[in-house]
Amino acid sequence: MIAANDPSLRSFVPVPEGSDFPIQNLPFGVFRRADSPAPRIGARIGDHVLDLLEIEAAGLFDGPELRGRDLLRGPSLNAFLAARRPAWREARQTLSLLLRDTEEALRDNQALRARALLPASSVEMCLPAQVGDYTDFYSSREHATNVGVMFRGPDNALMPNWLHMPIAYHGRSSSLVVSGTPVRRPCGQTKADTAPAPSFGASRLLDFELEVGFLTGPGNELGRPIPAAEAEDHIFGLLLVNDWSARDIQKWEYQPLGPFLGKNFATSVSPWVVTLDALEPFRCAGPIQDPEPLEYLHTPGAHGFDIQLEALLAPAGGRNEERLTLTNFKYLYWNMAQQLAHHTVNGCNTRPGDLVASGTISGPTRESRGSMLELCWGGKEPIRLSNGEERTFLRDGDRLTIRGWCQGAGYRIGFGEVTGVVMPALETSQLTAEPRS
Amino acid sequence: MIAANDPSLRSFVPVPEGSDFPIQNLPFGVFRRADSPAPRIGARIGDHVLDLLEIEAAGLFDGPELRGRDLLRGPSLNAFLAARRPAWREARQTLSLLLRDTEEALRDNQALRARALLPASSVEMCLPAQVGDYTDFYSSREHATNVGVMFRGPDNALMPNWLHMPIAYHGRSSSLVVSGTPVRRPCGQTKADTAPAPSFGASRLLDFELEVGFLTGPGNELGRPIPAAEAEDHIFGLLLVNDWSARDIQKWEYQPLGPFLGKNFATSVSPWVVTLDALEPFRCAGPIQDPEPLEYLHTPGAHGFDIQLEALLAPAGGRNEERLTLTNFKYLYWNMAQQLAHHTVNGCNTRPGDLVASGTISGPTRESRGSMLELCWGGKEPIRLSNGEERTFLRDGDRLTIRGWCQGAGYRIGFGEVTGVVMPALETSQLTAEPRS
Repeated sequence: MIAANDPSLRSFVPVPEGSDFPIQNLPFGVFRRADSPAPRIGARIGDHVLDLLEIEAAGLFDGPELRGRDLLRGPSLNAFLAARRPAWREARQTLSLLLRDTEEALRDNQALRARALLPASSVEMCLPAQVGDYTDFYSSREHATNVGVMFRGPDNALMPNWLHMPIAYHGRSSSLVVSGTPVRRPCGQTKADTAPAPSFGASRLLDFELEVGFLTGPGNELGRPIPAAEAEDHIFGLLLVNDWSARDIQKWEYQPLGPFLGKNFATSVSPWVVTLDALEPFRCAGPIQDPEPLEYLHTPGAHGFDIQLEALLAPAGGRNEERLTLTNFKYLYWNMAQQLAHHTVNGCNTRPGDLVASGTISGPTRESRGSMLELCWGGKEPIRLSNGEERTFLRDGDRLTIRGWCQGAGYRIGFGEVTGVVMPALETSQLTAEPRS
Repeated sequence: MIAANDPSLRSFVPVPEGSDFPIQNLPFGVFRRADSPAPRIGARIGDHVLDLLEIEAAGLFDGPELRGRDLLRGPSLNAFLAARRPAWREARQTLSLLLRDTEEALRDNQALRARALLPASSVEMCLPAQVGDYTDFYSSREHATNVGVMFRGPDNALMPNWLHMPIAYHGRSSSLVVSGTPVRRPCGQTKADTAPAPSFGASRLLDFELEVGFLTGPGNELGRPIPAAEAEDHIFGLLLVNDWSARDIQKWEYQPLGPFLGKNFATSVSPWVVTLDALEPFRCAGPIQDPEPLEYLHTPGAHGFDIQLEALLAPAGGRNEERLTLTNFKYLYWNMAQQLAHHTVNGCNTRPGDLVASGTISGPTRESRGSMLELCWGGKEPIRLSNGEERTFLRDGDRLTIRGWCQGAGYRIGFGEVTGVVMPALETSQLTAEPRS
């Protein structure tokens, strides 16, 4: 049998040149059809979505791991995530076979094709999982260093713990939104260094953070850590994350308990989850770790992934988007297996569908920094846009888009995008007159 | 009609002298019957649990807010929390009527009583809600000051932001456990001040934190803050929280992003949720706030509650528990309405069943401090137990219990307890051999 990652595979479904979604990818997501309100699970190929409820109903998930288990009916990926890699792999292999140009089962079944293959533009994408807990790491050495230099000077840029463990904090699950959802500029307390007291108003320092996250499954019991050597068995797939941040709110609130209102007003994710199996050809070594981590963080072998990542800005009122940064997932100092081993080493349990994000991914050059804070060095070095405007942080009406892809020989394994437009803050008067429904 | 809070009310169900659960209380919880695995909603009275699925099935929730809505069938409180205060109030008023010694409907229906009134000792309590997000505040000035003095000295005890806003961080939902669940001592990285590098092992500084939390409902839309004046409409009821903390892990990890593995190995909650309506007679003023908070945090009127709180230790191998601390919910500087207004002022959404905890509640005296860290002043002032032992932090086998109650004239509105015993840490060898299920 030809493996699902084989570059020579072709589908009978047309895949445009340079598409993020060739038959070698087959990411999973959750969508709503125009004719049915209940969310369903889909797989993406080219410009089409394959409705997996229809594939399930047609009895085509007939392998030993999936048959009769109803794992792919929706309304979220959670039940599928609770299964283990053999089920994940069988689902992808089944879809890879069904969609090949050499296979008749779907290709020649016009009625099923009509029901199951939908133009991507005709469906509404949803959050791929019901996320129980969202954890955000801080695993880019370049990002932590940049922020540290700005806040504490070059001599104390990295905290003493940073090179010994993957630092993280708990984020907010309720405000996770899918790509395309507009993001309202938050209000809150801020305090200028020279002001005697804080004041209330709309954040003036709204930023994006370019991140990549993974969805977990099947989960571990409370009190039973996931060893680093088994951690990748708990990683279903990856997606793009924009951890919107209000730097002025964050700066005033974050000591001593960390980010709260500066982050939890919205976190956007891309809708298609690219499986770890699809990313396997792009596995690569991570940075050398010195000092050597403690034993529970040992991960011999290659645990980085060569995923190119860019952030683009379409300024308010303009049509063209321009690239702000080009960076790469492989720059991350702490890999995903180390993140998950650390997260659970105290017995903390994970559940199917937890979201674990990387933290802002910055590279070694100015052009590869993953946030406005770093790109503009705290506002001191504005970016000049091609329309003549400058930016240090995001303005109302700006659209920020993150894209990611792995470049193979003649094909790419892409993530699509996570995008969102900035809406103006609520007027203060609206803050005291919540409509009652 | 006699109000549900009237002290003269009596139930036909016997209520022992001094019980936490007289007819004036009627807290809600979720339990499993011995003869049925699906969790159900119950109300507590004396030493009995009233099975609300049976009351619902008997058609006794027949008021305009509840009739036909199936809000009290379980398997969690979430659907009931999603309803608003009129539904919450009608449910409590209906139960208050049904349980009065003057009312025949349940009193004289022996078959229904046999089905619906269960000895509390015969049921297994569950988490009362499926908690979407768990937020932990830091709202006790005495606690923040004590910790600040220990960590940064008396001149910098409170951070500059503390008197201007209720500080909080996001906790972990997955590791919330119900009272009675044993808690395993976590392993992790720690570093002595004098050591050149961190080491791995079991936490040696395991602590409790005495807290009170509330469950939210019905929730607010993303982008639409809850004004302080309406915040109490979003508070269903209160419960006890023990935010177990590993101080040595916390100390090494917490900068700059706050607590993570030092907290997320377990958080215990009491099973019975005492409604805000039942607590109404114990409403009282909170501390004077100076400087005056910003307008969005204005809460004229009384927003404290006079709830006595104690923590007790039953040392390993001993039978007797002894009180470590006696404190009070009314000491909290920031009230719950301010917490919720602040939490959502940036547009952050809440959902039915979010858990919002107070942070450690310490009072003005040494005897009212809410954690071992403060009681023993960072280990420098050990507690002497009546069995001759000393404690600075918790030992394996120690049982820690938190209780809370409001004292009325001739009755008390109690919370029951949240208790847990400390289990020894896993051996390091167990950390690398997770059983696969």
